[in-house]
Amino acid sequence: MAFNFTEGKLVIRNGTVVNADQKFKADVYVVDGKIQEVGPNLRVVEGVREIDATDKFVIPGGIDTHTHMQLPFMGTVAVDDFYHGTRAGLAGGTTMIIDFVLGGRGTSLLASYDQWRKWADEKVCSDYSFHVGVTWWSPQVREEMKVLVEEKGINSFKMFMAYKDVFMLRDDEMLQAFARCKEIGALAQVHAENGDLIAVKSKEMVERGITGPEGHEMCRPEEVETEAVKRAIMLANQTRCPLYVVHVMSKSAADEISAAKRKGIVVFGEPIAACLGTDGTNYWHKCWRHAAGHVMGPPLRPDTTTPGYLMDLLANGDLDCTGTDNCTFSGNQKALGKDDFRSIPNGVNGVEDRMSVVWEKGVYTGKMDVCRFVDVTSTTAAKIFGLYPRKGCIAVGSDADIVVWDPDQTRVISAKTHHQAVDFNIFEGLECHGVPVYVISRGKVVVDHGKIDVVKGSGKFIPRQPWTDFVYSRVHQRDKVDQPQKVEREPYTGPVIDLSKK
Amino acid sequence: MAFNFTEGKLVIRNGTVVNADQKFKADVYVVDGKIQEVGPNLRVVEGVREIDATDKFVIPGGIDTHTHMQLPFMGTVAVDDFYHGTRAGLAGGTTMIIDFVLGGRGTSLLASYDQWRKWADEKVCSDYSFHVGVTWWSPQVREEMKVLVEEKGINSFKMFMAYKDVFMLRDDEMLQAFARCKEIGALAQVHAENGDLIAVKSKEMVERGITGPEGHEMCRPEEVETEAVKRAIMLANQTRCPLYVVHVMSKSAADEISAAKRKGIVVFGEPIAACLGTDGTNYWHKCWRHAAGHVMGPPLRPDTTTPGYLMDLLANGDLDCTGTDNCTFSGNQKALGKDDFRSIPNGVNGVEDRMSVVWEKGVYTGKMDVCRFVDVTSTTAAKIFGLYPRKGCIAVGSDADIVVWDPDQTRVISAKTHHQAVDFNIFEGLECHGVPVYVISRGKVVVDHGKIDVVKGSGKFIPRQPWTDFVYSRVHQRDKVDQPQKVEREPYTGPVIDLSKK
Amino acid sequence: MAFNFTEGKLVIRNGTVVNADQKFKADVYVVDGKIQEVGPNLRVVEGVREIDATDKFVIPGGIDTHTHMQLPFMGTVAVDDFYHGTRAGLAGGTTMIIDFVLGGRGTSLLASYDQWRKWADEKVCSDYSFHVGVTWWSPQVREEMKVLVEEKGINSFKMFMAYKDVFMLRDDEMLQAFARCKEIGALAQVHAENGDLIAVKSKEMVERGITGPEGHEMCRPEEVETEAVKRAIMLANQTRCPLYVVHVMSKSAADEISAAKRKGIVVFGEPIAACLGTDGTNYWHKCWRHAAGHVMGPPLRPDTTTPGYLMDLLANGDLDCTGTDNCTFSGNQKALGKDDFRSIPNGVNGVEDRMSVVWEKGVYTGKMDVCRFVDVTSTTAAKIFGLYPRKGCIAVGSDADIVVWDPDQTRVISAKTHHQAVDFNIFEGLECHGVPVYVISRGKVVVDHGKIDVVKGSGKFIPRQPWTDFVYSRVHQRDKVDQPQKVEREPYTGPVIDLSKK
Amino acid sequence: MAFNFTEGKLVIRNGTVVNADQKFKADVYVVDGKIQEVGPNLRVVEGVREIDATDKFVIPGGIDTHTHMQLPFMGTVAVDDFYHGTRAGLAGGTTMIIDFVLGGRGTSLLASYDQWRKWADEKVCSDYSFHVGVTWWSPQVREEMKVLVEEKGINSFKMFMAYKDVFMLRDDEMLQAFARCKEIGALAQVHAENGDLIAVKSKEMVERGITGPEGHEMCRPEEVETEAVKRAIMLANQTRCPLYVVHVMSKSAADEISAAKRKGIVVFGEPIAACLGTDGTNYWHKCWRHAAGHVMGPPLRPDTTTPGYLMDLLANGDLDCTGTDNCTFSGNQKALGKDDFRSIPNGVNGVEDRMSVVWEKGVYTGKMDVCRFVDVTSTTAAKIFGLYPRKGCIAVGSDADIVVWDPDQTRVISAKTHHQAVDFNIFEGLECHGVPVYVISRGKVVVDHGKIDVVKGSGKFIPRQPWTDFVYSRVHQRDKVDQPQKVEREPYTGPVIDLSKK
Repeated sequence: MAFNFTEGKLVIRNGTVVNADQKFKADVYVVDGKIQEVGPNLRVVEGVREIDATDKFVIPGGIDTHTHMQLPFMGTVAVDDFYHGTRAGLAGGTTMIIDFVLGGRGTSLLASYDQWRKWADEKVCSDYSFHVGVTWWSPQVREEMKVLVEEKGINSFKMFMAYKDVFMLRDDEMLQAFARCKEIGALAQVHAENGDLIAVKSKEMVERGITGPEGHEMCRPEEVETEAVKRAIMLANQTRCPLYVVHVMSKSAADEISAAKRKGIVVFGEPIAACLGTDGTNYWHKCWRHAAGHVMGPPLRPDTTTPGYLMDLLANGDLDCTGTDNCTFSGNQKALGKDDFRSIPNGVNGVEDRMSVVWEKGVYTGKMDVCRFVDVTSTTAAKIFGLYPRKGCIAVGSDADIVVWDPDQTRVISAKTHHQAVDFNIFEGLECHGVPVYVISRGKVVVDHGKIDVVKGSGKFIPRQPWTDFVYSRVHQRDKVDQPQKVEREPYTGPVIDLSKK
Repeated sequence: MAFNFTEGKLVIRNGTVVNADQKFKADVYVVDGKIQEVGPNLRVVEGVREIDATDKFVIPGGIDTHTHMQLPFMGTVAVDDFYHGTRAGLAGGTTMIIDFVLGGRGTSLLASYDQWRKWADEKVCSDYSFHVGVTWWSPQVREEMKVLVEEKGINSFKMFMAYKDVFMLRDDEMLQAFARCKEIGALAQVHAENGDLIAVKSKEMVERGITGPEGHEMCRPEEVETEAVKRAIMLANQTRCPLYVVHVMSKSAADEISAAKRKGIVVFGEPIAACLGTDGTNYWHKCWRHAAGHVMGPPLRPDTTTPGYLMDLLANGDLDCTGTDNCTFSGNQKALGKDDFRSIPNGVNGVEDRMSVVWEKGVYTGKMDVCRFVDVTSTTAAKIFGLYPRKGCIAVGSDADIVVWDPDQTRVISAKTHHQAVDFNIFEGLECHGVPVYVISRGKVVVDHGKIDVVKGSGKFIPRQPWTDFVYSRVHQRDKVDQPQKVEREPYTGPVIDLSKK
Repeated sequence: MAFNFTEGKLVIRNGTVVNADQKFKADVYVVDGKIQEVGPNLRVVEGVREIDATDKFVIPGGIDTHTHMQLPFMGTVAVDDFYHGTRAGLAGGTTMIIDFVLGGRGTSLLASYDQWRKWADEKVCSDYSFHVGVTWWSPQVREEMKVLVEEKGINSFKMFMAYKDVFMLRDDEMLQAFARCKEIGALAQVHAENGDLIAVKSKEMVERGITGPEGHEMCRPEEVETEAVKRAIMLANQTRCPLYVVHVMSKSAADEISAAKRKGIVVFGEPIAACLGTDGTNYWHKCWRHAAGHVMGPPLRPDTTTPGYLMDLLANGDLDCTGTDNCTFSGNQKALGKDDFRSIPNGVNGVEDRMSVVWEKGVYTGKMDVCRFVDVTSTTAAKIFGLYPRKGCIAVGSDADIVVWDPDQTRVISAKTHHQAVDFNIFEGLECHGVPVYVISRGKVVVDHGKIDVVKGSGKFIPRQPWTDFVYSRVHQRDKVDQPQKVEREPYTGPVIDLSKK
Repeated sequence: MAFNFTEGKLVIRNGTVVNADQKFKADVYVVDGKIQEVGPNLRVVEGVREIDATDKFVIPGGIDTHTHMQLPFMGTVAVDDFYHGTRAGLAGGTTMIIDFVLGGRGTSLLASYDQWRKWADEKVCSDYSFHVGVTWWSPQVREEMKVLVEEKGINSFKMFMAYKDVFMLRDDEMLQAFARCKEIGALAQVHAENGDLIAVKSKEMVERGITGPEGHEMCRPEEVETEAVKRAIMLANQTRCPLYVVHVMSKSAADEISAAKRKGIVVFGEPIAACLGTDGTNYWHKCWRHAAGHVMGPPLRPDTTTPGYLMDLLANGDLDCTGTDNCTFSGNQKALGKDDFRSIPNGVNGVEDRMSVVWEKGVYTGKMDVCRFVDVTSTTAAKIFGLYPRKGCIAVGSDADIVVWDPDQTRVISAKTHHQAVDFNIFEGLECHGVPVYVISRGKVVVDHGKIDVVKGSGKFIPRQPWTDFVYSRVHQRDKVDQPQKVEREPYTGPVIDLSKK
């Protein structure tokens, strides 16, 4: 029996390799799911499959930092499950997702973790990992966080400042959660909106007869997000815990992150495809189904300058990496809230289109160069979450999660042609320059000019280590050189008022 | 028996009358506690007392917007009672104070009001009024707020975001309090600090062995105030309730107010004498008694550029009027916290020196002119709290609360010479240009070149009306022209997912 | 012959008098062009004309701080001369204008002044005054500035940073002009745009074939104004000269002023009716005549959030008073630039509609209250330019320039109905709440429910004094207490390199 | 004759290699001046010199972006020539400098270039390159810029907004210089200060008797720099030319850069060792020689929070890379200005201490991690100026400019021990963590535990290419997709005023 010398091997020829730091002409040789060699005119085993990347970019596969596949939420379940979701991601050039374990109040974090692992492992087509939601607070939760970090490959926990009575933590609980993250070397994440305010305002809107999707935005306008971002940053900074703000949806929220960074606070901001590619004027659309299709929390903003502004900050480094909050509900599910926006399941698509949207709005417009594109779609995420340089770069030894990107092709986004299970697409009709002509996941070509070839359950869970260098090295040094100091004084020995005498 | 035609009459000659809008040479004729005439070379009844104001300014008496006379607090009682406090105020040129009714959790607001009125009425030497603290929340509190407004002359209520488990309201309670203020035409006030954070950090400081007064600041640094200011502004704005932030102590907190104003939000900011005249480096003083003498909440800031910055914003109109938070505890009372800063009674002096401090740091430095001085020490307070033009200006018909101010004299502030009951002065040693040579309260000369002549209990409670024009006219117009509007849509009649089938 | 006791007398009954500081119900009694009495239920001479102001506001007549009547400019002459211009102003509630003496390079300022006085005196229907343009620099100009201040009633000079080779001064000349203003107690004004940049970019636009009105804006976009505003503020501040920025047209330019004020710099900002009431998208209008009708410098901004933003800052005090830059050219004049926007005469209308536009966009929207309306349309201008309290308030002794304003009436602005000579109106079609039902100029009713009754040449030139208190009192005090100080050192007696030896 | 197999070879063992993107344990193998291999446990030719880097960082050699060795200036010549300067640089871990060709007004740029090359080539001990100063403007200058780019390896030109009558360009000249840079693919650099203002103020200071070094700062305070930075950014942006601001010395100047970046403007900011490590209070020092030793332009700022602030922005990416403006004059040279600060030769040291200062103030304090340290001291400079990845990283194929950095050692900076020719050190007494134990230049160990072994003239001029990717790729894309567009309109055929008839 002859041994197949070309099995598991692949060479990408004549492309321009792009990493976050530079781009250069080189071939890339892949063996057994890893990048074996990068350089000009590589000599490889005869018969190995050759992919021609002439005039194309060879980039690290995208990492979507924020998805909710098959999430049970608001009485129903997100339609894109781990199979459809990761498959669609691959179709768009995303070779890894980080999803959320999100159990309810009172539920063991470990039990939820196990549940989610089970759901995912049997379905994922690409590599993935998990953040874990801390949706309530108790000594048990505190204990389980440690177990998750030490034994389960988790290094990031998300806390909610909204969804009152469902996921929301109060400030005193947040403080404990942040302190715990700091102790165990994890990164604290927040969904930042003022839940108390939303509860009051959403009731008020309905009482005023504003029951349509526009009410969803009107009861949680921009400043409701911004306030919470500022609060989260203060609470985390006072705890000396690094912070990651998920789905930064508005200009003023981004400004808070930007201002904090300028003061040296360790905080990261994640815009998502939705807020980079569309806006909240859709909530005022005359078609209910269209409007409802955009309902998510925090909402898209009616200020139409928002997407461009966020992209500028993403280009500039004030924002860091991109997710999608992909959590899809089809029209008939959204229709649960036809008489009251409070019952519209929250969530939109994005996992498939994120790379294209960032390219179109960021690179094609000249806001960022292709190196920064790689940085914000892959590299920085890998650094923050402890995956780098295994993921996030084209380098010897890295996982062969690679996309061959054609900057000259265009495609038009549509629910009719997308690979997600959901029947709606918030980017409908957007023409995007830049198409992933080949997508390689762990060394295997899974997308070839639009043809998708994936295996359910073939993706791997990627465990991550705590104390990520990118996140914690500054924190450590500050802890070392800058601790609160007491003033040395003579003890006070003077008179004290006697409270017993009145 | 001859009728005394000169009784209750007084004329101030040859001074420069200063109002917020202009200054001009004029005499001022006072009859029966009111200003009868303002103009050049006034002809008055023969034998009337003449006060010579040549080369001096004739200004409206100061209004201190924020005092706590004889406040029962942290186990003891503030030493300046309504007698000593108002007497000291008069000595410094302040002819009216607005104090706080501040009952504990569970206490009837009306009962507290009665208690405080009793305490004050029997002792005050100058006119006064009250804000009422909403230190807990219940239907009863809500009801009593209305009674206070309609029957008791109250138009401002203060909510605390700090003093957890004592006075602090949570966001959901604040929202109800703000909404209530809006309904009844009152002005919402906040003490803005994040109480949850302070609780955690103050415990942490003590555990680290930092038990001195410096710990007081370190567990509630600037950003803890700033966060709360931003939050309060958002919550009030969403409720469309005008907001007044008491004791703005830091640059970044003031910036939040400034930014909100620029967006058209109806918010007012009150710096106090303490933060305009000294700073938080005093907490690091080697003498415990000195350091503890400065303990107040929110604390003074160690950033020594703070006083000048706040004065610039006060000059510019980003901040509005000045109080003192006068709440004095003598050294032996402060000593209750000698082993733990958490037990140091919070509070400092100011009622006597506010006018001088604002003059020295504001007018003498050229940051503001004398008209703006009158504005920030008297006129704007009168407008905000509904006292104008009865108080806050030198005009026909106004109360004869008048100060003859000599800009060329100087005095040095000292606990040895001040008129307050407390044995410490945070402005010790400060040389101030500008001295009130005559102070006239309700037409009576109560200070004459340093000689004080007051009558205990002679001051009057000044009731105030709701819906103050200065505060509410913009709010009313906005309510009229800018209400949330629903989108008119065809009702959704499409399919809806059937949740009963899983 | 019987003496007519009612001649020159007038009483306004039952209105709400509004000044910058407050509003109150009162009658106003006018005698011989001055306000004789203000108070409830005034008793007046029998037979005096009574004007009923029930449910109306009685406000000080507007002051337009910035007009160019019959200006010779760009080869033609503005069509609204001093007659039509002041008549239209009165029709809209503006009872005083401050126009500009604007001679060319090399022309004596005094000669220009005489020329402009002659033009104006024979035509004006309302009171007026002049700023003088310093359009070139020489020892003669420097000398004449002093004569203008000391003998001609001028206290403000305008310098141009744009109009290269026509009016523009370079920085070294500006510095001398500012220093001169400071010496003689005048207020320096600037037209702030970078003239060098405009020269280059306008040429570039034409070379690209962009010859339409949109090119006018594209070659002097917002940042060209903003840069110059910052530069002017720096140069003036370094000279310790107070500065007044005319026609603040953009958000970022206003931000510079706002930021400077927060640092205590003495600077004033003047938005104009045009930028508060319309925007620069008009330059992209398909109709050339419409687009050209909006051409002015600096241009209106295509950012449609500009008017609301500027109004917020005007409401808040970051901007100070309102002018119009009224400088009107009819369509056939504008057509001089039909093939090249550089030949379109710059200028728009405004003198008639300013009050209405500020009311509609400022008061009706709830951005400012009616007191602030009076402040920004009249009072602050009077204070800055040394006219207060003669102008700018309803008070005993003030000039009887009074408007009875009906907040409940509406009118629609149109070139078809306006009183200006120009055949175009940039506010065409704008419906405004608030109509001046009576306008009284120097005690004479000149507008009565739309009927206008004016006399050509009846207005008076109002001379103004230098060292205006509102502008200079802070400057004086700073000069007194804050002069540069040298370091006292031992003289250096050490070795010095000998440059003669190489 | 035996061939020496170990010649030109070197291996660094067991260190932590640090690049801008990550750090990792690896050996580094150097052959013939290039990095041959990077990896764990490298196998190398026997007998090769092994350097032990256990517990140390192996970092790319520093690049000083801004030096003036042996500059003829203000009548004298900087004492650190290309020999002493580069030798001192190597001693401190800087393996490349970029100096400035700086001929006077009227001098051929090419002739100056040749002169400077001659001076440098015969003396440099490390690699180097040149920026070229455009100190005047003419068609010849314009032409020579192209030659320098195309034939001489220059891709950056510096323009001065200060040094009036010496180097200063006016705005109209700057615009032409920027446009030219854009045409030829070079990066425009500016020295940003308002030269007109400085000329006036410096004269004023001397007239006031302020002749000491403090006068140097007082006549060019912070806002004079900030204004010019804003102006330069506007002018460059309007020309679509990328801009690099040399020696960003103040907080507000840095803020301008930061704000511009957030809007997507292509601008880079260079703080220098001086402003990161010390401050302008030194100008007020009682010792004239000490004060004069700090004189440079723009000056250090008396605001003592400046260094920390600039470091925060450098950490955060708002500032980009670090130079020194090393231009040293000894005390006897500085003494030329003993009676008039205007004659003090401008310039300070830095080339030797830059790496240590950035480490101490940036890394040791926890403001940046070691990767960002590499980025700001080397990598970003290499990217901006087109040297990457030849310089600026530890990677196969890169030049072997390597430093072995011991983070645990400390040293105290002093003129007594430094390697510069100058007799003064602005960082005197600063204790720095972090010491370069080995410095390798082009594969040769030039520093070994403080022992220096260099060869005069051994360094090489590194030519650089235009159109650097890092600088120009966004610019290109914007030029492609975002050009000014005209409005398509019907030609105007209406009447036009006839100017011939008056």
